Amino acid sequence: MLAKTLAQKVLGGDRLALAKAITLVESSLAKHREEATTLLNELTIRDDTLRVGICGTPGAGKSTLINRLGMHILSTGIKPAVLAMDPSSVNFGGSILGDKTRMIDLSVQENAFVRPSPTRGMMGGITSSCSEAILLCEAAGFKSVIVETVGLGQSETLIDDICDIIILVTSPAEGDALQGIKKGIMEVADIIAVNKCDGPLESRAKRAKMELMKALSYNIKRYPEWATEVVLVSAQKNMYVPELWNTVLKAKESLKDQIQAKRKRQAMKQTELILNYLLREQLKQMRETPDYQAVSDSLAKGHLVPRKAAFDLLRVMANSLSK
Amino acid sequence: MLAKTLAQKVLGGDRLALAKAITLVESSLAKHREEATTLLNELTIRDDTLRVGICGTPGAGKSTLINRLGMHILSTGIKPAVLAMDPSSVNFGGSILGDKTRMIDLSVQENAFVRPSPTRGMMGGITSSCSEAILLCEAAGFKSVIVETVGLGQSETLIDDICDIIILVTSPAEGDALQGIKKGIMEVADIIAVNKCDGPLESRAKRAKMELMKALSYNIKRYPEWATEVVLVSAQKNMYVPELWNTVLKAKESLKDQIQAKRKRQAMKQTELILNYLLREQLKQMRETPDYQAVSDSLAKGHLVPRKAAFDLLRVMANSLSK
Repeated sequence: MLAKTLAQKVLGGDRLALAKAITLVESSLAKHREEATTLLNELTIRDDTLRVGICGTPGAGKSTLINRLGMHILSTGIKPAVLAMDPSSVNFGGSILGDKTRMIDLSVQENAFVRPSPTRGMMGGITSSCSEAILLCEAAGFKSVIVETVGLGQSETLIDDICDIIILVTSPAEGDALQGIKKGIMEVADIIAVNKCDGPLESRAKRAKMELMKALSYNIKRYPEWATEVVLVSAQKNMYVPELWNTVLKAKESLKDQIQAKRKRQAMKQTELILNYLLREQLKQMRETPDYQAVSDSLAKGHLVPRKAAFDLLRVMANSLSK
Repeated sequence: MLAKTLAQKVLGGDRLALAKAITLVESSLAKHREEATTLLNELTIRDDTLRVGICGTPGAGKSTLINRLGMHILSTGIKPAVLAMDPSSVNFGGSILGDKTRMIDLSVQENAFVRPSPTRGMMGGITSSCSEAILLCEAAGFKSVIVETVGLGQSETLIDDICDIIILVTSPAEGDALQGIKKGIMEVADIIAVNKCDGPLESRAKRAKMELMKALSYNIKRYPEWATEVVLVSAQKNMYVPELWNTVLKAKESLKDQIQAKRKRQAMKQTELILNYLLREQLKQMRETPDYQAVSDSLAKGHLVPRKAAFDLLRVMANSLSK
């Protein structure tokens, strides 16, 4: 299918076309890359959307909560999309199923879109692929995009590179609510949702909320317009989900200007990541050229020092790029 | 001083000029960088030299051993140079003194050269600076260059990027000789020197040797021509130092072709590291240009997606590089 036709279908809200388009931008094949660029150029970039990142330790109930949140968003007349991002899958291979089983309600809705984590991040890493997938979802009319981070590692900071508002999901089940929460995550969280606030865990959840609020009071506020809020929720029992979403909308309203500035920074960062990728690719291609071989031979014979060789190759690269 | 004059003095074996030249190649100032390039281009690159990397856990007695080795090398009529490389100093600031106090004998010799670790690695990282320092030492007539790694982290693998032969120094003092030795280090070590083989530790050193040999027997040999040798030594008592050096020379002889191939790979790797550095610099400079600003504005207005913006910037960069 031609990229332009695909773009039209995406803009028309076609979910199958959207899924295909995301696969296309994730592809590393040269011909796909050109098509993907054409496709992305055809999109209308929207600024009336909301990108919510969800992070938290495994077992906190993120997927169940996202299922509920998605259903609630739908009930307010907004089409939600859910993307999963797993930075570790790039290093270790294999992708998760996106926990569709835990998003069973949402994934069968006609006006929702649920997409598992890609196994590789093209053109500048996993966040580039994911942010292009966000653009595609938004172009297809999904005005609220929820990005779930799965896997461990730098998920928290990476998700902050592509989302407007970050929710940290924690659970009181493992005793200390603060345990296992790294400092970095506290710094990017705009909202902390203490999940599993039901049945026997209710009082522990409430205590966890107090502890978290106390811990937050020692932190420097990220924005003057917004202090991280701690909210109680029960995904399992579907309680306080609208309250959580209202807090998200309240944060969105308070941080309007901040989010605009953040998106600008994010776009520039993605651009530089992709540019770095393109330069690395260029370098890889150069390795196959006679010019590169000549420099390599001179190095081996001791006619050149690496510093001089690097300057020579820089010139070779510039020439091939200007073509 | 003009770079060419400095080069002549280095080639004449002037130690003060050598020290200045090394400082020059480590400098990050633009005008120094040009001079350094001129300087390096004037050098005769020698292939009749030996680059020995020394690594090992802190407290194993590396500096004391290097002092003894250097004195022994001197006695064989070869001028030794000792360089210290501390990858952690780049991240954490501050440099070590190069343990000149433990190399007191060597550092006062007229035919030896001892140089502390640089605080920063220019043009592609600490290994680039260090390998340029090696070239300078060799050009100045120091035919055996010993590179001591200090600091923790990736020292072992980094030193393998700039040296011909790697000695791992260990000591039986902390009980298990294998303890604290990471797998990575075992894989790059061509020789393992069990130090402190004297007095009460002698029997433990001998047992450590046996243990190490057993551990090595499970490893895949790095080269068909050479199996890692374990040698006993006492730097403190100055015992078995000539034996250790003879093992180094034996390895050098057996690995003649391998070392030549290794140097070629190393030079190419350094070249690419420097090239990457130059590209990063170019990117930094581009950030100040109107072209960059225009792309950034279009991104902010949503007229561009990052992928397209990256291609646009790649063209801008190529144009400025070709000038």
